[in-house]
Amino acid sequence: MSVGTAGQHNISLGEEIVGRINQLAAISETPEHLARIFLTPEHRAAADLILSWMREAGMHAHLDAIGNVCGRYEGNLPDLPCLMLGSHYDTVRDAGKWDGPLGVITAIACVADLNRRGRRLPYAIEITGFADEEGVRFASTLLGSRAVAGTFDASVLDGRDRDGISMREALTNFGLDPDQIGRAARTRRELLAYLELHIEQGPVLEAQNLAVGVVTAIAGATRMAARLTGMAGHAGTVPMALRRDALTGAAECITAIEETCRADPNGLVGTVGSIHAAPGATNVIPGQVSFTIDIRAPTDTHRKRAVADIVQRVEAIARRRNLALRLDVTHENRTVPCAAWLKSQIAEAIAGEAFSLFELPSGAGHDGMAMVDIADVAMIFVRCRGGISHHPDEHVELADADAGARVLLRVIENFRPRDT
Amino acid sequence: MSVGTAGQHNISLGEEIVGRINQLAAISETPEHLARIFLTPEHRAAADLILSWMREAGMHAHLDAIGNVCGRYEGNLPDLPCLMLGSHYDTVRDAGKWDGPLGVITAIACVADLNRRGRRLPYAIEITGFADEEGVRFASTLLGSRAVAGTFDASVLDGRDRDGISMREALTNFGLDPDQIGRAARTRRELLAYLELHIEQGPVLEAQNLAVGVVTAIAGATRMAARLTGMAGHAGTVPMALRRDALTGAAECITAIEETCRADPNGLVGTVGSIHAAPGATNVIPGQVSFTIDIRAPTDTHRKRAVADIVQRVEAIARRRNLALRLDVTHENRTVPCAAWLKSQIAEAIAGEAFSLFELPSGAGHDGMAMVDIADVAMIFVRCRGGISHHPDEHVELADADAGARVLLRVIENFRPRDT
Repeated sequence: MSVGTAGQHNISLGEEIVGRINQLAAISETPEHLARIFLTPEHRAAADLILSWMREAGMHAHLDAIGNVCGRYEGNLPDLPCLMLGSHYDTVRDAGKWDGPLGVITAIACVADLNRRGRRLPYAIEITGFADEEGVRFASTLLGSRAVAGTFDASVLDGRDRDGISMREALTNFGLDPDQIGRAARTRRELLAYLELHIEQGPVLEAQNLAVGVVTAIAGATRMAARLTGMAGHAGTVPMALRRDALTGAAECITAIEETCRADPNGLVGTVGSIHAAPGATNVIPGQVSFTIDIRAPTDTHRKRAVADIVQRVEAIARRRNLALRLDVTHENRTVPCAAWLKSQIAEAIAGEAFSLFELPSGAGHDGMAMVDIADVAMIFVRCRGGISHHPDEHVELADADAGARVLLRVIENFRPRDT
Repeated sequence: MSVGTAGQHNISLGEEIVGRINQLAAISETPEHLARIFLTPEHRAAADLILSWMREAGMHAHLDAIGNVCGRYEGNLPDLPCLMLGSHYDTVRDAGKWDGPLGVITAIACVADLNRRGRRLPYAIEITGFADEEGVRFASTLLGSRAVAGTFDASVLDGRDRDGISMREALTNFGLDPDQIGRAARTRRELLAYLELHIEQGPVLEAQNLAVGVVTAIAGATRMAARLTGMAGHAGTVPMALRRDALTGAAECITAIEETCRADPNGLVGTVGSIHAAPGATNVIPGQVSFTIDIRAPTDTHRKRAVADIVQRVEAIARRRNLALRLDVTHENRTVPCAAWLKSQIAEAIAGEAFSLFELPSGAGHDGMAMVDIADVAMIFVRCRGGISHHPDEHVELADADAGARVLLRVIENFRPRDT
């Protein structure tokens, strides 16, 4: 589907968005599996396409020092502080086409609509297409939004990808100057708020039969690595009572984690995603099992209480079964609450479009986690089919893309900065 | 330790046995990790050493068509049927030195003792060092004893090892004629019984503080491959109530298998030795989990009842959790009961040596599983440290090796064939 210049055709925002989602999805490392990785030629081609859409929408647009695509639509006076909209345009490998691009493309579609109507607001609108949120290439996430928030850690420039190329080299090859990344940083005074529209990446809106939802918070996460050590033995010769089976111990831990989270009424989730049993033969009792634990909750207090509870249960299981336990926290993210004043403006817009209001936490991480350091943040979720994401089956219905755009446009047009 | 020709030194059977265990263990693919694999040069060197020990013990000895080391000590008349003793002289990789060789070397030590005393019995004694019990090279076990039992499956001759060499080629290179394997077969009329001494490979005798035990049966085994399929999803975005987590399902199955076996008073054992969760990332709910199930019990009825029970529990768990289940039986071995008349003669010998009588099943497989097709079988177990086997730490105390030999010698000298 080809989309003409702004105002020429009478097509819905949803149609324009879906058309551009497909155009962007065609820019991939391989045609079969969508992959648009930070600082690759595809990444550059995508940036150029987005820049062209921004300009078409009446924005000034440029690439910043980390590769973020930055567009600005002036307000009714020059140099006004902005409402910043955004999301990311990198992908995971074998990705879906909506995760990230939907937020960037929808924001551009909204600005294009304002521009077609010649509408200027008492604040500027900026759109940032963040260069790297997923962290696929250099194993460090939120690179684009951290640069904008001024929290970019320069030591990651020396990190290398799987081909041995450092981020510094990759930036230079892309045509950027690694020593200028500090210039991508923005200040709190320039931003009135950061607002992101994104697919839910979960099944909650679908279960609620709703196209859009208001995010309450980007949930914090604690990740742990657990290792249970018992005693390997012959599957036939060691009676049950004499076993120190690390896998039956791990199974009991996995069940305990599930029970703890299921019993929680406030959105606690816990996942064991990876498990390895050694030696791993059919006829040998596992002597050692390693597994990961991922715990998320809508508030930090809640999560920390749950983690303490789970650690205690795992320790008790290990002790009772005479298994040695090693438990390390490998990763921890604070919860980023969405600002109440922004949530209520989104709620108004949802009501204005005659949708039901529904709030839900984001279990996945988003650029708002970095942006919160320089602005109040909020998010709008759009339903995705089956809750599937990071997968080629990721899908958003045209009507839902349109609903998300209409809500976002209403938020933009009716936006009141916090102090007014 | 060097052991002279029979009768020259006043050393215990245990000392002779331990010395020869060490001599044989020196014959290995690599000096660091004991490995004596079927039809390799080490295997040949070991066979030659065992043949020399047999001849030294007054036996006629030869290699049969599959590579079994066969020795015969005539009775008080020529051509009498024999009591056959035996075990295997191949090893797993990175093996212990006792698993197999202990039975062969102990039997030779007993015959050497008879020979030193000039004692002839009203039956012949034969000793077979089976060429391949472990099945490491051609992924088919009990090759030596199956050839002797006349149940060798000629189709395995076309099987190839990891270097692409077929068993047929390996036999030829070893100096054997693959077309003559049928000639290794013995008949029921030639054998009065088959009796094997072996390390327990489990911790039961150690827990009982006993050097030796009488085996009740070589337990049958059922092995299954289970696969649970749910739905992968983001660890943060899918609420607990909407998950179809294949790993929490598998954990519940593992716990159920353990519970079923622990609750059984009659030696049922169940093991999940191998598990694989996909996609296997920390932050992704496992959509598919594969695991193995190994169930053993001292009788076939008991095992089949337990398998049916476990299958039912696993099916119920999968149904309740809305997971697709695939469950395949990958391997099944019947139970081989040890003959009551032989067990009672072993019990007499144990009492004669002033040890306590203790019966236990063998959870591991042994050559008796093949030999039962042409003879009643029985086994004597010798305690091994910590129940550890198939590992360099496998260990038997000299006193226990001696105890095993004294019991075996008493059984041999007091043996009454079934019909007399």
